[in-house]
Amino acid sequence: MDHAGRLRRLRSGLEENDLDLLLVTHLPNIHYLCGFTGSAAVLLVGDHGSDNTGSVLFTDGRYRTQAKAEIKGANVKQVKIVIASKSPLMAAAEWLAGQGRSSKPGTLAPTWVGIEAEAITAGMRDRLASALKGGFGRATGGGARLSSGSGKIRLRSAPPLVERARMVKDAAEILRIRRAVELGAGLFRIAREKIRPGVREVEVAAAMEYEARCAGAEGMSFPTILAAGKRSAIVHGRASGARIPRRGFVVCDFGVILAGYCSDRTRTVHVGRPSGEARGLYEAVLEAQQAAIAEVRPGVTAAEVDSAARRVLGKRKLARYFTHSTGHGLGLEIHELPRLAAGQAQKLEPGMVVTIEPGAYVAGKWGVRIEDVVVVTSSGCEVLTATEKELVVI
Amino acid sequence: MDHAGRLRRLRSGLEENDLDLLLVTHLPNIHYLCGFTGSAAVLLVGDHGSDNTGSVLFTDGRYRTQAKAEIKGANVKQVKIVIASKSPLMAAAEWLAGQGRSSKPGTLAPTWVGIEAEAITAGMRDRLASALKGGFGRATGGGARLSSGSGKIRLRSAPPLVERARMVKDAAEILRIRRAVELGAGLFRIAREKIRPGVREVEVAAAMEYEARCAGAEGMSFPTILAAGKRSAIVHGRASGARIPRRGFVVCDFGVILAGYCSDRTRTVHVGRPSGEARGLYEAVLEAQQAAIAEVRPGVTAAEVDSAARRVLGKRKLARYFTHSTGHGLGLEIHELPRLAAGQAQKLEPGMVVTIEPGAYVAGKWGVRIEDVVVVTSSGCEVLTATEKELVVI
Repeated sequence: MDHAGRLRRLRSGLEENDLDLLLVTHLPNIHYLCGFTGSAAVLLVGDHGSDNTGSVLFTDGRYRTQAKAEIKGANVKQVKIVIASKSPLMAAAEWLAGQGRSSKPGTLAPTWVGIEAEAITAGMRDRLASALKGGFGRATGGGARLSSGSGKIRLRSAPPLVERARMVKDAAEILRIRRAVELGAGLFRIAREKIRPGVREVEVAAAMEYEARCAGAEGMSFPTILAAGKRSAIVHGRASGARIPRRGFVVCDFGVILAGYCSDRTRTVHVGRPSGEARGLYEAVLEAQQAAIAEVRPGVTAAEVDSAARRVLGKRKLARYFTHSTGHGLGLEIHELPRLAAGQAQKLEPGMVVTIEPGAYVAGKWGVRIEDVVVVTSSGCEVLTATEKELVVI
Repeated sequence: MDHAGRLRRLRSGLEENDLDLLLVTHLPNIHYLCGFTGSAAVLLVGDHGSDNTGSVLFTDGRYRTQAKAEIKGANVKQVKIVIASKSPLMAAAEWLAGQGRSSKPGTLAPTWVGIEAEAITAGMRDRLASALKGGFGRATGGGARLSSGSGKIRLRSAPPLVERARMVKDAAEILRIRRAVELGAGLFRIAREKIRPGVREVEVAAAMEYEARCAGAEGMSFPTILAAGKRSAIVHGRASGARIPRRGFVVCDFGVILAGYCSDRTRTVHVGRPSGEARGLYEAVLEAQQAAIAEVRPGVTAAEVDSAARRVLGKRKLARYFTHSTGHGLGLEIHELPRLAAGQAQKLEPGMVVTIEPGAYVAGKWGVRIEDVVVVTSSGCEVLTATEKELVVI
């Protein structure tokens, strides 16, 4: 993982946005930038020259050893570590207040500090402002100015620079995602073995999760969805104590976290002999998924991939049963940019990794979803672990 | 669960704080107040009379059926449900903007809306302000005023009214916690069976999590900690691929979520024959835990319970190895108020449920933690599922 390069590119981004520093509070962004995986931290990314001096990781005493090891592992030695006695945020505020007094001596130019408005609570922002001995000025757009005591520190909401960088994965990340997807894909074998009429949904999920853990997963990337019979119509039908009926669809949507990276996959099986209507529904969703996958290539917008799936279901008069978006990016988090949904103008680029997961749900009756993870390549996309998608009948 | 009573008491709290409405954005608070458990919602709690009219749950299309069922189950029929076409927050903002125009006709009194500053992002607050056609005025203390177009809606950071109410559990909640703790406690049996030299930590955790799921748990209340040998010194040593050594402590810290409520428990076992020093460390931590438990009764402050544990370790010159607080409340969330830590003046009351979990950690060598959940009673406390705490040697 090229953490130093990520920090370098981010600093260019800060310059383009007239920011001197970025106060990173979103933990997956901190993980991405400097390798630290603890649960309490703030990373202040500086812009003071050609190396990475000026970047400081603030964390607490619990993470003293871990922070040192992870920063070393990420090979960003220039990132200093500060162990906060109170909260990492307040330690960062104190550090900033010190900067306000000492930096840029002899000039009146303020230090502009970008904040991640979607990853800092209103209370945190208030405390930050207050610790910097000032208050928020009148908001202009999404931004907010800080009138600090020294008159030298200004806060402003930054664009989602790190999230945008994270959209395009490098080779090392794609390899990790591939490993996670391979492990995740193997869990479907367990589901096929365990899904039988009378078995509780949660027992199937438990067996899959046990296998994932024993195979080295840190955990599941989201609560396992195992929704049988009428419950298959519930888009987020977490595995429950309900028993699998003698006949009907079972939606299995599951993912693992392996070495920090997420997988995500859905397969829908049918218990008992499927009716012609059930087969028709399955085929329509599968065709929609294949149409969307065929649309994925550099330059195409996220909205175009979404509408490719929607068009197929529309022809079969099923569009209104497809009640969610076609997919989402994934990586360190299970939901990342881009969103494959109507209105999303983001163009696909090589290295983006997205799910393609159309579905159709008829409340009180049944539902089908089919999902794979694809990597955008220079000419189209690669479906990670392309496996059979014919309807499995149990 | 007496959801209607909770809403009623909250509305009294709003009145005492000169708030007309509370915009609840913390999902566990929404769950507590009206029973809704979905992943996207905003609850606007009103204060319009003796019944619960004026409370509105905003959620999205995915949760149409679930919201109706859960609100009905909570028996708070007066809570209206609004299905948002965009985000629940923006739907609430539109509703509020409408209130600003139509409510309190003929008066110039503003409608004061409390927000949960620790559970709303800075970006959300900015969007809310902007949707209400105004901006934030100069912050005064933790508060922020909204100058709305109509001049009638004012936002202000509210005190943590719901969190404070949630500190004291009612009988139905204590019963749920008891069930969760019982299920959680049983998992230690699996740990004792599985912990053997050469076994990977993660295999032990996987077996415990499998048992929890099969027994009906929705999931674990936090990533299972299984830290063996030198890793036992890592306070948050999540189960890893490391193999259990032939000799040393193994810290097992684990909890389940059952019917919405969390359990939390730690036991430390020793693989191989413990040295006198190891036994001494274990006995010291156990004595500290017992001293803290003995201190728990109504009227005692959270800080006093913490210092009871710290005092015992201090006598043995181990105080500096006890690097975290003595405990925390738990319920719908794994970490709730009160915090049992230095400086915490909160007095204990009957019905509070807290963990008591002192520990001692020597980096690079070993660590011990012993944890139970206790309920504050009228005269002291009850340790839920009090089991043997003598050092288990495997």
